[in-house]
Amino acid sequence: MFAYNLHHVAIAVHDLDAALESHRLQYGIEASHREVVSSQGVEEAMLSIGGSSVQLLTPLSADSPVGRFLEKRGEGLHHIAYAVSDLEASLAHLAATGVRLIDTEPRIGGGGHRIAFVHPSSFGGTLIELVEVVR
Amino acid sequence: MFAYNLHHVAIAVHDLDAALESHRLQYGIEASHREVVSSQGVEEAMLSIGGSSVQLLTPLSADSPVGRFLEKRGEGLHHIAYAVSDLEASLAHLAATGVRLIDTEPRIGGGGHRIAFVHPSSFGGTLIELVEVVR
Repeated sequence: MFAYNLHHVAIAVHDLDAALESHRLQYGIEASHREVVSSQGVEEAMLSIGGSSVQLLTPLSADSPVGRFLEKRGEGLHHIAYAVSDLEASLAHLAATGVRLIDTEPRIGGGGHRIAFVHPSSFGGTLIELVEVVR
Repeated sequence: MFAYNLHHVAIAVHDLDAALESHRLQYGIEASHREVVSSQGVEEAMLSIGGSSVQLLTPLSADSPVGRFLEKRGEGLHHIAYAVSDLEASLAHLAATGVRLIDTEPRIGGGGHRIAFVHPSSFGGTLIELVEVVR
């Protein structure tokens, strides 16, 4: 059992301010953190809810992974992220299981956490991120 | 603040058994509940993780909402569900905010919980379900 929490579910949007405001009005959920993550070409906001979070993502440019996602599929659910306690061990386990990885080595994501993405072909077309939380 | 938890995130798949087995092998997450929900035309499995769940959905027929989703978009993230304490009050609030609802009245979903769906046009193309947990 190595994934111990649903760290966040991410939604790609065109207008981060408008999405935050409508989510606040509709569901009473507010952003606890907002950050430009240049290495991923996104601005992201984290909306804490229960023990998990909703992450709203907007691209910094059309020529970025989230920009291309919006162009191809429109706004909507983009990925889910599982919290793991040991990212290297998790990546080694997945590779040994024959899972295709996008990131074979950890990198630094939003909030300073260590992250890696797993290719969507490995599980029902769903992009999965692993997050080792850095406190 | 009326949405108090991310109750689940749902993924539509073609083969529920294969999806459960690969998720178990890859992430160590097992199904805590499995059920045919005829009224929604699906068989679903709930995989508890942290304080939330991943729900795997497979259609009972091609001519069902999830069957049409798979035909059109393929496997992948289908909806997110927020837990609310008072479903009628939540639906009244959303309607008063101008949000388009799929279900204007609660109905019974998997696990016997009271549920309602909000139209994806109301928030960034994302289908949102509200769940009032029945214990």
